[in-house]
Amino acid sequence: MNIEQFVFLQESGNVSIPGILLNYYSRLGITEEELMVLIQVKKFKENGNHFPTPTELSEYMSITTSTCTSVLRSLLQRGFLHIEELEQNAILYEMYSLKPLWEKLYSFLMQDEKKTKNLEEEQ
Amino acid sequence: MNIEQFVFLQESGNVSIPGILLNYYSRLGITEEELMVLIQVKKFKENGNHFPTPTELSEYMSITTSTCTSVLRSLLQRGFLHIEELEQNAILYEMYSLKPLWEKLYSFLMQDEKKTKNLEEEQ
Amino acid sequence: MNIEQFVFLQESGNVSIPGILLNYYSRLGITEEELMVLIQVKKFKENGNHFPTPTELSEYMSITTSTCTSVLRSLLQRGFLHIEELEQNAILYEMYSLKPLWEKLYSFLMQDEKKTKNLEEEQ
Amino acid sequence: MNIEQFVFLQESGNVSIPGILLNYYSRLGITEEELMVLIQVKKFKENGNHFPTPTELSEYMSITTSTCTSVLRSLLQRGFLHIEELEQNAILYEMYSLKPLWEKLYSFLMQDEKKTKNLEEEQ
Repeated sequence: MNIEQFVFLQESGNVSIPGILLNYYSRLGITEEELMVLIQVKKFKENGNHFPTPTELSEYMSITTSTCTSVLRSLLQRGFLHIEELEQNAILYEMYSLKPLWEKLYSFLMQDEKKTKNLEEEQ
Repeated sequence: MNIEQFVFLQESGNVSIPGILLNYYSRLGITEEELMVLIQVKKFKENGNHFPTPTELSEYMSITTSTCTSVLRSLLQRGFLHIEELEQNAILYEMYSLKPLWEKLYSFLMQDEKKTKNLEEEQ
Repeated sequence: MNIEQFVFLQESGNVSIPGILLNYYSRLGITEEELMVLIQVKKFKENGNHFPTPTELSEYMSITTSTCTSVLRSLLQRGFLHIEELEQNAILYEMYSLKPLWEKLYSFLMQDEKKTKNLEEEQ
Repeated sequence: MNIEQFVFLQESGNVSIPGILLNYYSRLGITEEELMVLIQVKKFKENGNHFPTPTELSEYMSITTSTCTSVLRSLLQRGFLHIEELEQNAILYEMYSLKPLWEKLYSFLMQDEKKTKNLEEEQ
């Protein structure tokens, strides 16, 4: 590996996945394939592309473009992903937002906390 | 969210996934399900458990214990994962190592570089 | 860079620093030198050494061992760092805990939220 | 912490610092204060601001704007930081690049490798 490759490696960076997302996604009803789509969306957003197409996403995945389209649609419908609209210089931009994912995670953690407390009190 | 939950959140930390792994896993022949098993193994290792069982792993995933066992076996056989043995105080410990994954990624990057160069020279 | 160096690079991993810590440490009264000591402690902990000595820490820093000792003492006294005791097989282990740092960050965020609200209400 | 704060927390994300940078910055002659300036630059870049001013940077640090200006100038002169120019729609943009930092790190690692080998051969 030469110096250009090493610099490229460092510049391609890392995507940080919160431990709690890795611990609870399956309990939120998210599959591994769906989580990987969300992680790829996060990667694109961190690199400045806030609205990657299914073709762009599937290029880095083992799933086809049409499967990717279905997964995105399902994530949007089930409220794990959201499309925000942004007007800049009279042009309307669309961008994916992962906020609904964090909201669902928050609600789950709060509910889980309650259940744990109730269980403790019962014992 | 109270102070204990916030501290718990910070202490559960993050798992960093290299951008190049997210970009190239599918070209290495790894599926989304398999990558998530590798990421869960990484998470367990970073939390001090270097040899999580299929039961422990599948607890945080949407796949069953037996599917998890199959995925681990396949990753070991295809050389993406390795079991290292460590002797400490006369006790033999087994631990997962992700070194073969990084080796395959390195080989792929080097090969890719070569192909790109050949293509450029042909044109 | 050969294959062994690349694997070493991946295995030495990354330390994730929460954006909110980078945004608020100076308002908590932490200097850059002190934050770097805390980050080095986090790095050592993630690599399995939960109680690095000032000598071990300063080896990777531009400060001397005795400055490192002073910084650690000050962080402990001001409640940004804590030493936990753990008994295992009748042996007492000491380990650094960053919990007090997250607690201070939480209190700051809550207080800040309050101030912002008060300001908004005044306007 | 309510749901908005939790979402804000997740959206403010993390900055990943490579383990090898934390291990070798002091041997490259970088101080803790300087490294924190570089980390703040990285944070701003990841949030879409590729050319933060000394005022913007020092707002999140314990150093003054004028110290921050000096640190940036010194990092540029010593070749740890670089300003790239980018033309877009006939407007010239300036942006910080951390490429020289990774290049210096690469050279150091390669040199270090050589020294280690020489030492081993001598013994």
